[in-house]
Amino acid sequence: MNQLYSSKLLENVVTEFSKLPGIGKKTALRMALHLLKQDEESVRHFGQAVIQLRSEVVYCRECHNLSDVEVCEICSNPRRDHSVVCVVETVRDVMSIENTMQYQGVYHVLGGVISPMDGIGPVDLTIDSLEQKVAAGKILEIILALSTTMEGDTTNFYIYRKVKHFPVLVSTLARGLAIGDELEYADQITLGRSIVNRMPFENTFNNSKIQ
Amino acid sequence: MNQLYSSKLLENVVTEFSKLPGIGKKTALRMALHLLKQDEESVRHFGQAVIQLRSEVVYCRECHNLSDVEVCEICSNPRRDHSVVCVVETVRDVMSIENTMQYQGVYHVLGGVISPMDGIGPVDLTIDSLEQKVAAGKILEIILALSTTMEGDTTNFYIYRKVKHFPVLVSTLARGLAIGDELEYADQITLGRSIVNRMPFENTFNNSKIQ
Repeated sequence: MNQLYSSKLLENVVTEFSKLPGIGKKTALRMALHLLKQDEESVRHFGQAVIQLRSEVVYCRECHNLSDVEVCEICSNPRRDHSVVCVVETVRDVMSIENTMQYQGVYHVLGGVISPMDGIGPVDLTIDSLEQKVAAGKILEIILALSTTMEGDTTNFYIYRKVKHFPVLVSTLARGLAIGDELEYADQITLGRSIVNRMPFENTFNNSKIQ
Repeated sequence: MNQLYSSKLLENVVTEFSKLPGIGKKTALRMALHLLKQDEESVRHFGQAVIQLRSEVVYCRECHNLSDVEVCEICSNPRRDHSVVCVVETVRDVMSIENTMQYQGVYHVLGGVISPMDGIGPVDLTIDSLEQKVAAGKILEIILALSTTMEGDTTNFYIYRKVKHFPVLVSTLARGLAIGDELEYADQITLGRSIVNRMPFENTFNNSKIQ
């Protein structure tokens, strides 16, 4: 049954909020009523921030990450190693890796993975732009950091085939037990891979940055 | 640890969203990235709806419900029974009762309940305005529909004392087992009250509107 609203303005906002992912009508109403309790200036700020984000944010010309300027902070930072490129699916993955503070190279955001089921092919991603960067010859290493799904693996392989003629090292993230995992609860594939790809114990002492 | 954002505009929106009730930084980021995928016009609509709600919505002069005009749709509806007033805490309670489609009277929104712990006294609520309405002599019945909490009961009693000199019937919502409840799981107070206030079986046939 449809909710009856005493105010059309309120109904509009509830409708708008409930379009957001994971937000139902009840939560949307709670949010709208919450905003009504805030002072007018901060609600104006809220609305304008949203409008401004959509109208002003751009994708970095170099790495396709979200940015306020044409070339993002990471790509324009001379202290980052521009010869190492970490290939990720989304903007969120850049944030996750940045948060580890373990990576000093630059990124390349694909915008997704190849997924015929969802109608996403190589042309819908920024793979061409990555290939051009590699062809320009300034890149020494590409780190493939995509999801470990079928689609991620397909995309990894597609990229690998595109760049293998060039003198560039293609690496991928280490697979193995997560820190804090117990053997008993690890899945068999991960556990199997972590035995096959076992590493010298001395390496575990080495917690320094990769670059 | 603080998330690092590549875009200040994005960070602003995430900060704004995460001020909403029940929304953390991760959900806020998901919302912001979702908006980025929408077309510019609909995001502008979203932002403006929020700003407009806060700047234009008013509280109905009669019942203090949210409204787009000075007197809300319910209070200005001549087909509603203006001699019966249902006293509720919030705007949301009006919606809940309206949704039952069982009530044809009007409302009075208190704006909360008396709660000394939260620093809310009778002067912070619209009790004076209710008393004036009753004093004007046009109201035959007041239905107290507040929460069954200590604060709700206190507020009920306060209102009752304010209006008992006037020739007005003060009633309260029926207490008892909810439809679909099993006896085994009902709490003792509710079950006890529903035995004390048992009602003629014939009444259960009567499912017509109260007015």
